[in-house]
Amino acid sequence: MTQWQMMTISMDRKYKSLLDSLTYYLFEMGAQGTQIEGADYYLETEDLYGEIRSQGSEESKEPLQVKAFFEPTITPDYIQSQLQAMLQVPVQIQSQVIKEENWQANWMSHYELQTISRFIKIVPAWQDYQSNYPDERIIFLNPGLSFGTGNHTTTRLSGQALELFMQGGERVIDVGTGSGILSLIAWSLGAKQVWGYDLDPQAIQAATDNLAIHQAKTGQNIAVEFQVNDLLSGVEQTAEIIVANILPHILKELIPQAGPLLTENGYLILGGILEEKAKDLIDYLEESGWKVCQKTSAEGWANLVVQKKED
Amino acid sequence: MTQWQMMTISMDRKYKSLLDSLTYYLFEMGAQGTQIEGADYYLETEDLYGEIRSQGSEESKEPLQVKAFFEPTITPDYIQSQLQAMLQVPVQIQSQVIKEENWQANWMSHYELQTISRFIKIVPAWQDYQSNYPDERIIFLNPGLSFGTGNHTTTRLSGQALELFMQGGERVIDVGTGSGILSLIAWSLGAKQVWGYDLDPQAIQAATDNLAIHQAKTGQNIAVEFQVNDLLSGVEQTAEIIVANILPHILKELIPQAGPLLTENGYLILGGILEEKAKDLIDYLEESGWKVCQKTSAEGWANLVVQKKED
Repeated sequence: MTQWQMMTISMDRKYKSLLDSLTYYLFEMGAQGTQIEGADYYLETEDLYGEIRSQGSEESKEPLQVKAFFEPTITPDYIQSQLQAMLQVPVQIQSQVIKEENWQANWMSHYELQTISRFIKIVPAWQDYQSNYPDERIIFLNPGLSFGTGNHTTTRLSGQALELFMQGGERVIDVGTGSGILSLIAWSLGAKQVWGYDLDPQAIQAATDNLAIHQAKTGQNIAVEFQVNDLLSGVEQTAEIIVANILPHILKELIPQAGPLLTENGYLILGGILEEKAKDLIDYLEESGWKVCQKTSAEGWANLVVQKKED
Repeated sequence: MTQWQMMTISMDRKYKSLLDSLTYYLFEMGAQGTQIEGADYYLETEDLYGEIRSQGSEESKEPLQVKAFFEPTITPDYIQSQLQAMLQVPVQIQSQVIKEENWQANWMSHYELQTISRFIKIVPAWQDYQSNYPDERIIFLNPGLSFGTGNHTTTRLSGQALELFMQGGERVIDVGTGSGILSLIAWSLGAKQVWGYDLDPQAIQAATDNLAIHQAKTGQNIAVEFQVNDLLSGVEQTAEIIVANILPHILKELIPQAGPLLTENGYLILGGILEEKAKDLIDYLEESGWKVCQKTSAEGWANLVVQKKED
């Protein structure tokens, strides 16, 4: 019976800006999944729209914890020494050997099927899933970095916007593609061609792996290309749909880049917006030549579908 | 070549509360379609959430106009005398004979295909429509009363909510079904059984006609039942989904009725909400045991998907 090690890595909350690096190194060392407790760590570390956020008192808070799942051959001491060397800060590690069924209970319970809609389900690649309908789209995904960070809701809202506003035949650009999930959704909805970009080579690797899973499962030659890129810098091809489910402070950099690449009547879908920041972004959009076609909010997150105003 | 008469019925704006009756009588007398210029007439006449609205100055406003399309055998004098007798107010009528192609240009241009999503299209019953995809749902509809009154957006948002939150197999109740459009969408998304209610017998007749069109086109025995009813009074069967795309001031009457009929984890979909009134309704919902799962806004209208809070 397969055994797994669940290692719980703790570090002082004052090092929370290292969270992305920590997660990155864990995957580099062979973690099969990580799990961060809630999205608040991410949000706290972000400088939203350039504003200075109150840091508050750090002392009273719990340490920052990340759970990572490794094969049993890797020792906690090795992970600890490597992380300390790479991050240059002290980390503590607790290790727990868990059996297959417990591993499933622990890990897989966090990697459940995600429902985008009646038509689209996101299923962890190792799971069997029986479609309810022949026309249901199943996106099999190796969740990797992209899960457990509180972004289920933003993915869902952006995926729903694709379903509601795409009609098929579009060229779609997916900015900050991460695991590639929205690119694969766009393809499954009938996109003619999809380009997924991400600044993070690890994300592009994960997305490429997920694409390979889909090629294998469907036998189709899927016209989705993933590439490392800084937002839309240097991108020249136009698209009927541009979707960007990214950290909110980056959206304002993206929007001026997206305008010239979007075809007439094309839609720009903006996800990852904190509800409390939505008004600020909507004001910015309306001042800079965009109109909001539809706004959806759920669980504190907002998603916008916008178009260029007619001249 | 078929000819049509487009009769433009004008009456003083101070009689705007008679608009529904006017439209009703026009259909009774054989109108094949009516067209009200904008939704503002409706909204102005409604006592939203029981509040008293400023009436403003009436004098400066244009008369209220409704266009109605009749076969050429009916005379404008007949329509005028009948309307004046029934409404007890003066009406003016201009009549214009239009040829088939002009009639189409005038009337059908207002009855265009409505796009709910990639998967759902609403098509006027007389139109040919070539599906883009085999899995696209085409709802053929004889628009009748339900079009041209500014409620395209609210229908779209409620239809989209059905698509995003239904998974198939549900029992669905559609309150204020009108033309039956949302009931037919729910059926097309895999509902097990749909009940559509409307206070207006004219609406139930139109919905029943539309259902007959679908039975004929699909050859299926569609489990949708339409019935005259005052909201959910006397309704006893439970449902996984209750959808109500109705005039906003009625929603607060409906919500307490819907609670006991909704199964655990069932969704109540509320459409027809003016964006500016949404906060008031959300406050009311949260005070009375509901939580908002998702809110979507477009073109000044809001749609809510809500659930009962757990005890």
